[in-house]
Amino acid sequence: MTHTEPPHTLTPTDRTRPRRMKEQASFERSDLESVLDAGFVCHLGVIVDGAPRVLPTVYGRDGGRLYVHGSVASRSLAADPDTEICVTVTHVDGLVLARSVFEHGVNYRSAMVYGVPRVLADDAEKTEALRVLTHHAAPGQWEYARRPDRKELAATTVLELSLEEASVKISAGPPDDGRSPDAQLGRWAGTLPLTSRWGAPTADPLLAPGITAPAHVVARAGTRQG
Amino acid sequence: MTHTEPPHTLTPTDRTRPRRMKEQASFERSDLESVLDAGFVCHLGVIVDGAPRVLPTVYGRDGGRLYVHGSVASRSLAADPDTEICVTVTHVDGLVLARSVFEHGVNYRSAMVYGVPRVLADDAEKTEALRVLTHHAAPGQWEYARRPDRKELAATTVLELSLEEASVKISAGPPDDGRSPDAQLGRWAGTLPLTSRWGAPTADPLLAPGITAPAHVVARAGTRQG
Repeated sequence: MTHTEPPHTLTPTDRTRPRRMKEQASFERSDLESVLDAGFVCHLGVIVDGAPRVLPTVYGRDGGRLYVHGSVASRSLAADPDTEICVTVTHVDGLVLARSVFEHGVNYRSAMVYGVPRVLADDAEKTEALRVLTHHAAPGQWEYARRPDRKELAATTVLELSLEEASVKISAGPPDDGRSPDAQLGRWAGTLPLTSRWGAPTADPLLAPGITAPAHVVARAGTRQG
Repeated sequence: MTHTEPPHTLTPTDRTRPRRMKEQASFERSDLESVLDAGFVCHLGVIVDGAPRVLPTVYGRDGGRLYVHGSVASRSLAADPDTEICVTVTHVDGLVLARSVFEHGVNYRSAMVYGVPRVLADDAEKTEALRVLTHHAAPGQWEYARRPDRKELAATTVLELSLEEASVKISAGPPDDGRSPDAQLGRWAGTLPLTSRWGAPTADPLLAPGITAPAHVVARAGTRQG
């Protein structure tokens, strides 16, 4: 697929413009892409019967577009046309332990994308979006596993969301109260980092003997995620 | 605080009753509590100007109540009274790599809580909720760090949400297609586990020499989170 090259800087809107000082907001497209590319599970916000609903789901990114998918039986993905959704991706990098409880916090990287999604209808478009999504979450598996057939495509809803309206917030580094009067309390302050790593692949107990995990799966073991 | 003992089983409502087969839904209160207690960052869903917004934020649980907090300057926490919110907590345990792309998925534990929150107004109530929240995310720090003063309490919005309407979904174990015709493809299938661990505490560069990290912080290093 060919896409129009998106601008390098995101245009702030009323809801993506930062209001608070502690978190660092970024409007660099490269920061948005790096937060999105580091993860594979997002939290999808929809409105169902007038109330917000937040669902964890897998996503993928291709250029300036984000894809989420689900069962056609899911009420949450069957939102009304022209209804906005919000997709949030968050990586928690650690706890910020300050001298005061008030300055405690979390180091994190988070992206929020807003927009009205497009429901993909065409089989070729859906297949391409599922390739993007599979490659994003489980690189190598689109080439290795059996691809979706027409019946499976029909059972899958795929939403496409533009990255046009998005915000990125990054909070990193030590606590903010190192030069405040609280520094005189003599209390320890710093961060407690949190890291996610892939473990060794575990074979399905039903797997026939002699089938070994492919190199693209084995290679992820021990690597960092997020 | 004394709370009425909640029932051991959650009562399904139209939106918490499971619709799909692949995920295992649980209505055991102990499962809900264990998913909530394993994390400290939730995704809070609110409606702002008619559109859904999903924000990562810290939470804490005390009995049958959940607390989230934020700056009073935050528009997202200043939702209208009597407006529902949704709080979702997700732990990603790994990727499910099946014989077919269609059966690929994520092993996870997720809790969703729905309700109209109560905005805490009283300083004593707010202080107690912040104690719960701090103890939940950073055990030991409420006792160790300087506690919030009146000005800091005034700058903090705390929402209380009952756990009465909630759902828990748990997906675990190998892929589902071990006995399907796809098993004849001779492809490897299994899971790729994902684990989060706390690292060693990193001191604030502004910390005066000779102040060492307290035992309750050092003890978390190397332990699992989630």
